[in-house]
Amino acid sequence: MRAEFIGIGSELLTSLKPETNSIYISQRLEEVGIKLAFKTICGDHEEDIINALKTARSRVQLIIITGGLGPTDDDLTRQAVSKFLGKELIFKEEIVERIAGRYRMRGKEMPEINIRQGFVIDGSEIIPNPVGTAPGMWIEESGTYFAILPGPPSEMIPMFDSFILPKLREISPFYISKCVLKVAGLTESEVDSLISEISRRARSTNISVLASPGIIEIHIISRSKKSIEDSHSIMEEVKNKIKEVLGENVFSEGENLEEVVGKLLRERGETLSVAESCTGGLLSSKITDVPGSSDYFQRGFIVYSNLAKIESLGIPKDLIEKEGAVSQPVAKLMAKKVREISRTTYGIGITGIAGPGGGTPDKPVGTVHIAISWEGGEEHTKNYFFGTREQIRTQSAIKALDMLRRHILKEMKK
Amino acid sequence: MRAEFIGIGSELLTSLKPETNSIYISQRLEEVGIKLAFKTICGDHEEDIINALKTARSRVQLIIITGGLGPTDDDLTRQAVSKFLGKELIFKEEIVERIAGRYRMRGKEMPEINIRQGFVIDGSEIIPNPVGTAPGMWIEESGTYFAILPGPPSEMIPMFDSFILPKLREISPFYISKCVLKVAGLTESEVDSLISEISRRARSTNISVLASPGIIEIHIISRSKKSIEDSHSIMEEVKNKIKEVLGENVFSEGENLEEVVGKLLRERGETLSVAESCTGGLLSSKITDVPGSSDYFQRGFIVYSNLAKIESLGIPKDLIEKEGAVSQPVAKLMAKKVREISRTTYGIGITGIAGPGGGTPDKPVGTVHIAISWEGGEEHTKNYFFGTREQIRTQSAIKALDMLRRHILKEMKK
Repeated sequence: MRAEFIGIGSELLTSLKPETNSIYISQRLEEVGIKLAFKTICGDHEEDIINALKTARSRVQLIIITGGLGPTDDDLTRQAVSKFLGKELIFKEEIVERIAGRYRMRGKEMPEINIRQGFVIDGSEIIPNPVGTAPGMWIEESGTYFAILPGPPSEMIPMFDSFILPKLREISPFYISKCVLKVAGLTESEVDSLISEISRRARSTNISVLASPGIIEIHIISRSKKSIEDSHSIMEEVKNKIKEVLGENVFSEGENLEEVVGKLLRERGETLSVAESCTGGLLSSKITDVPGSSDYFQRGFIVYSNLAKIESLGIPKDLIEKEGAVSQPVAKLMAKKVREISRTTYGIGITGIAGPGGGTPDKPVGTVHIAISWEGGEEHTKNYFFGTREQIRTQSAIKALDMLRRHILKEMKK
Repeated sequence: MRAEFIGIGSELLTSLKPETNSIYISQRLEEVGIKLAFKTICGDHEEDIINALKTARSRVQLIIITGGLGPTDDDLTRQAVSKFLGKELIFKEEIVERIAGRYRMRGKEMPEINIRQGFVIDGSEIIPNPVGTAPGMWIEESGTYFAILPGPPSEMIPMFDSFILPKLREISPFYISKCVLKVAGLTESEVDSLISEISRRARSTNISVLASPGIIEIHIISRSKKSIEDSHSIMEEVKNKIKEVLGENVFSEGENLEEVVGKLLRERGETLSVAESCTGGLLSSKITDVPGSSDYFQRGFIVYSNLAKIESLGIPKDLIEKEGAVSQPVAKLMAKKVREISRTTYGIGITGIAGPGGGTPDKPVGTVHIAISWEGGEEHTKNYFFGTREQIRTQSAIKALDMLRRHILKEMKK
């Protein structure tokens, strides 16, 4: 079965508000084995909406419409679909009662304008809206299915999940299992070439590789006509083959790197402090993005200037003058000093050139030294990252987290 | 004139790769006064592409197509448009010569597969591709204009700007001027109600308000049939009225808040250091996102734990025990101590509860104390921010920057 998404709203045709509902819906459709074949976006014009509906009915069997169900003059989806299908709009007292009740609960009276939202298309099933005022509708009409949902994602998503998804599972005879593997320490083309043979041979499975600075995601989707257990076992087989090939480069099946590192630290009762120069707080910010990170993150020093490195961490001025602030010895000492000052299990030090200025032939933009220190040991990498200032900073923070992750895994094997 | 965007590529119908070309193009069309009426996304299937072209021709006069011009079997745009228009594909030796030349420059031989990219639709104008291999095409056919461009934004954008835009300026008789005002310290509905009268009365001008955590953007687009000077003066009039009403809440006409604050500091030869608790490095990371921020940003302390506050900044243990780590006196002392330790003009201290855990009836999640300290003075705000952990942290960092901005403006008036 093929589906079309129709997003209604003039704002979706400007640069101000990118349309996102279709992204959520495409993912959900994938899960039930329905192919999204077209997306159409049109403005708040009755004629354009009817035109889009006509086109969609001529080419797919399932049409999912979002937007244009509000109470204002601009909201034309109800009347456009009703005209298009040649079905009356019928007034349902109980819908308006429910909307008025929501207003009363907040001590307010329902504006008269909301009465419009009490009209639904004759013969449709009404989809309750648990969050907002506009109900949705589900219509089957000569072999075509129409799902009509409000535009705000906070309303659309729960309505889609609770009402549309079960309908689609009835209609579509596929069982789908999927998962994601997250990878650090390899480039996209390295991942591609390592898994290409598995990809080629995998039956009933789509494998896609998605790259962002420092992180590669592998999305695996398997389908079966038999049962969910069958699609799950197909997926597991592919997943395990990929994990075998990529080894420790796979850091999770969904979690962020900062969450994975946080869990390892918490499990082992270990703590962390960081000293950042070129990343300027980005690594600390990532680590503390995780709720509960105070369990293992003690403190951070952003030593952006040389003076700060000298005063806050006690890096000798001589060392900076001799080796340069962006150097292996300085990164190592930053890691060691921050660990000693904070009395944590690990210390991380990062110093580099994020650009766009500041590069030299010897130390081009993207040169970043990263060190991890622990009682009785240390590790260091010299990296050359490509990209914008932001990309270089992001890759540096991810590399530091990944170094710590790999070190802890090594410790755990001892 | 109305336009339709057609994005071609099966990956654009999955959740992995949101389509972004149309966002850029919608903005450019706005500038020349052409209305984007529809967007259609379809996969790499010849039949679907032809279907989308048919639909588009029936409802608009300008069709902009991106994607599907690569050299592989999946790239079907050339042949689909050729079939749809009933025009032959013609081989152009010089295109292949150019592509082969690009390969030679890198010491490589052109793969045979690229020969396909030498075929163009009979009667089309060829649009050179300065970045990649696939040329674009421009076709006028019985009153409809077709622009065909490659999918990668890095190729599409320069080709659109250098070739399509001048064509559109010929076709469309409008002159457009636009600008953006960035606002901090007001909510979206406050901005809406303050400018609603100006918005209602503005002639030939669209005003849209766009909200993100802590920042409101006002986009102003004015058009004129006379001249660019005329549209510019219409826009300036509206802009100045809005600036008058919103006063110092407007912080820039495009720059980020961290850039604005950075410029003020640099101009005045002043410096900054920060002590962050709940924002965990986000404020420092924002400040150092700006290239050259080392001119005024000295250092940061991420004092996530109480111990870190006590040891790194010298906040008395008693004070934390008596007032709580999230309190006015602690925020103020953090700001003062970090300024003294770093010997900077200003110190900022932030302490709060970013959630989702850690809230109490007294200090609910979203309670954030922010203080700025300078020689002989200080300022403090107690804030209650709404939203997710990320939104609360972002609003805290923005509020801190905005407090500093307003303080400096006050100083400058003295």
